[in-house]
Amino acid sequence: MKTNPGRFFEDYRLGETITHAVPRTVSGGERALYHALYPARGALYSSDEFARGCGLPAAPVDDLIAFHVVFGKTVPDISLNAVANLGYAEGRWLAPVWPGDTLRSESTVIGLKENSNGKSGVVYVRTRGINQRGEAVLDYVRWVMVKKARLDAPAPEAVVPVLSPVVAPEALVVPDGLDFSRYDFALAGERHRWGDYTVGERIDHVDGVTVEEADHLLATRLWQNTSKVHFDVTQRADGRRLIYGGHVISLARALSFNGLANAQMIVALNAGAHANPCFAGDTVRAWSEVLDKAETGAPGVGALRLRLVAVKDGAAPFALKGEDGKYLPEVLLDLDCWALVPM
Amino acid sequence: MKTNPGRFFEDYRLGETITHAVPRTVSGGERALYHALYPARGALYSSDEFARGCGLPAAPVDDLIAFHVVFGKTVPDISLNAVANLGYAEGRWLAPVWPGDTLRSESTVIGLKENSNGKSGVVYVRTRGINQRGEAVLDYVRWVMVKKARLDAPAPEAVVPVLSPVVAPEALVVPDGLDFSRYDFALAGERHRWGDYTVGERIDHVDGVTVEEADHLLATRLWQNTSKVHFDVTQRADGRRLIYGGHVISLARALSFNGLANAQMIVALNAGAHANPCFAGDTVRAWSEVLDKAETGAPGVGALRLRLVAVKDGAAPFALKGEDGKYLPEVLLDLDCWALVPM
Amino acid sequence: MKTNPGRFFEDYRLGETITHAVPRTVSGGERALYHALYPARGALYSSDEFARGCGLPAAPVDDLIAFHVVFGKTVPDISLNAVANLGYAEGRWLAPVWPGDTLRSESTVIGLKENSNGKSGVVYVRTRGINQRGEAVLDYVRWVMVKKARLDAPAPEAVVPVLSPVVAPEALVVPDGLDFSRYDFALAGERHRWGDYTVGERIDHVDGVTVEEADHLLATRLWQNTSKVHFDVTQRADGRRLIYGGHVISLARALSFNGLANAQMIVALNAGAHANPCFAGDTVRAWSEVLDKAETGAPGVGALRLRLVAVKDGAAPFALKGEDGKYLPEVLLDLDCWALVPM
Repeated sequence: MKTNPGRFFEDYRLGETITHAVPRTVSGGERALYHALYPARGALYSSDEFARGCGLPAAPVDDLIAFHVVFGKTVPDISLNAVANLGYAEGRWLAPVWPGDTLRSESTVIGLKENSNGKSGVVYVRTRGINQRGEAVLDYVRWVMVKKARLDAPAPEAVVPVLSPVVAPEALVVPDGLDFSRYDFALAGERHRWGDYTVGERIDHVDGVTVEEADHLLATRLWQNTSKVHFDVTQRADGRRLIYGGHVISLARALSFNGLANAQMIVALNAGAHANPCFAGDTVRAWSEVLDKAETGAPGVGALRLRLVAVKDGAAPFALKGEDGKYLPEVLLDLDCWALVPM
Repeated sequence: MKTNPGRFFEDYRLGETITHAVPRTVSGGERALYHALYPARGALYSSDEFARGCGLPAAPVDDLIAFHVVFGKTVPDISLNAVANLGYAEGRWLAPVWPGDTLRSESTVIGLKENSNGKSGVVYVRTRGINQRGEAVLDYVRWVMVKKARLDAPAPEAVVPVLSPVVAPEALVVPDGLDFSRYDFALAGERHRWGDYTVGERIDHVDGVTVEEADHLLATRLWQNTSKVHFDVTQRADGRRLIYGGHVISLARALSFNGLANAQMIVALNAGAHANPCFAGDTVRAWSEVLDKAETGAPGVGALRLRLVAVKDGAAPFALKGEDGKYLPEVLLDLDCWALVPM
Repeated sequence: MKTNPGRFFEDYRLGETITHAVPRTVSGGERALYHALYPARGALYSSDEFARGCGLPAAPVDDLIAFHVVFGKTVPDISLNAVANLGYAEGRWLAPVWPGDTLRSESTVIGLKENSNGKSGVVYVRTRGINQRGEAVLDYVRWVMVKKARLDAPAPEAVVPVLSPVVAPEALVVPDGLDFSRYDFALAGERHRWGDYTVGERIDHVDGVTVEEADHLLATRLWQNTSKVHFDVTQRADGRRLIYGGHVISLARALSFNGLANAQMIVALNAGAHANPCFAGDTVRAWSEVLDKAETGAPGVGALRLRLVAVKDGAAPFALKGEDGKYLPEVLLDLDCWALVPM
């Protein structure tokens, strides 16, 4: 058999490290496509000059380009036979990615727990994105529910990793040289500083984008994500193509510019849930809540812990969960992250 | 309130200069996308080698990439609450834009006139695109009708700027070094020189493009244009997304290759009207009329003043206006520009 | 008449060489778009680092980018009035194309044969793609059936070139420096070497892609292919836009990663047939057959001769031809090529 059937639950071993295939060199092409696929307007990722004004040598590629490239590589090994993408934790951006950099990914299996039905199990992996100098640029934990192929395969000893509910502010990595002390608020697009945001504050980002099939197909291919349900209408009984969850993350992040234009760099992913599936034709909106604030020690650089929620048009204001504690059907994404903001 | 509600008519002051947000570094990525979004084939913008044969150090990015990038930045400040985009005048391309350049925009309010209904008014701005060396690359006047938010706000003194109906040939800026005296007509795609075009001549550009939603959405996001009607189907009662007028300009310009392949560089925008809205599914065609001719003094470089008209499929040949002087319903765009052509 | 009506059968002269217009400089933008348009994952074209590990200075652009760019330029001169694209032969990739290279195309008429109905004829051309140093990067023969405009034009003397049914292994050009002796199979995505493939072996590539209009429109414009049937819904009675055959070639090639991940570089096109038209909405799948094997003399570099077949969803396994020897209606493409594979 020459083709890749993907791994099933019984194929994972605790502690093993999987080298994911197909390293990728990114260029201005990936950036331009990212800015065509999402209404991304963060000045630091849009302009070399603005980035220089913030102490960087040039504009890195968008934080989520790094995430998508690293994540996409893991799909053939981790989630080709996944039933569900259950969660993210302890995600940290460790170094900017520059045009010309080449990224590869590897994942270590840090937890395994077979489900009581014996037909599937949960796999926990810690994934690292690594550049051509061997430096880690991104590190995150993801756990997925994966089918078993051989139902008689014995259940492994259950190991569930203890994960931090949130990345501690002291663990945030501020890019070398980043300095917001001469930050140009006019060119960034909004005047709101770190001090203008208060914990508990919620922001409706107002704008919406109606998603086209072509949008998510182009994106998902660009990230070399091979999950069949995104591309092939014969994979689901309803003939619809499921939109890659990361596409919704990028949409929500881009929409959040309107009110969070100065949340320039995401540096940690504390948690994330793809609450409901998204399909072409949905009009996606977003809102945010300030969950916490921290100083970073870097000049002029503060951090905001943000809940970023994507919803479908028609959702009630700040829709999240019902009285039963479950996500409302209009909620697509509930993301918890840290972003760097000028003080 | 953290989000941007846009400016209303009463928010503009005569003489004020608005710094538009989100500077942008362009690369080969923007060029490749432009050539994927429009059937652009101008040799000077397609080939570094061809551009060198014309005295330039490399191929600049397409003239309309510069326009769209500069224009897009103005939307959040000028036209977010606009009822109509009324006109353009005195547009001049002042320097080529190269991959690696970073553009920002600023606009000065040069005219204000409240409408007699007291509910809206016309704002005239002169917008400049500026590169990372502080050089202006593009300068144009635009006027838009903008809603009032506070109907009781007093009307400003009416000031309507006096605008030239056409950029004088002497004011056209030929890029430094441009030399068409060894122009390669075979590689450019057509043999017609400046001398082969006569004032009054009309050219049907033959080809047509049926527009997809994805085409204009990708383009409009790439230019960081934030106007809601382009992206969000809930903005109009009919659930249709209005296509950014600049998308039609680029389509018409690209289609005009067939008959005007040697009109390599647009250097002035004398006037322009978005005569009727364009929607996905429309098949767009174009025709041109030679309105005037001029020499430029640069070696081998002439200028043609062209009327470039975009129409929907089914329009009569050279459709423009009815007997009532109004644009026919099939007419999408009526643009008046100067382009540089080999003599 | 200023516009290009294209050439008709009577306009071709045996032995003439046609310089095709609009040279093109390629960049990382074209690569990123290629990887967004097709699920391309070949490591050598994705990563500068992987390419360096294979003895190249960096990652060239995908072999089929070179093909599409060179092919696209020929359309206005060769196939604007073509009734059918009949075949390919003797195609060879002669040198890699790198970001920054500028390609132009020229074609020599090597055969002419009027059809017995007197209304059309077959034109055979040998096309060369040439870079900015004057080096040929690609060379192939194509023949098309072209309409006559003047039915009374005399038939030329019939000349049908003698074409090799397959490029001989000795004629394959291995890129300078290519060395697969330290090939990284883990990063490439599959462990199968040249020695693991046997002549006659067939591989079902499993995955499928449902094609969107936007996909092929973006691609076909990017390659500056001007054939009207791809872009304009008014060109066909059924209002459908015919998908550029090269789009299906690239789709099939990308899908073949799953089972042929190590077929890194296509170096010869022995033959090709666009068996049936492809339209948006079709879900495209692919299968391959190993037709032959050869050594190349370059370190660690073997060659596989592959039949690559694209089919529509619902086709029987390994569908190709019926008992009548004709392609089955579900078959879109039957391509015969040589690819370089690590030994």
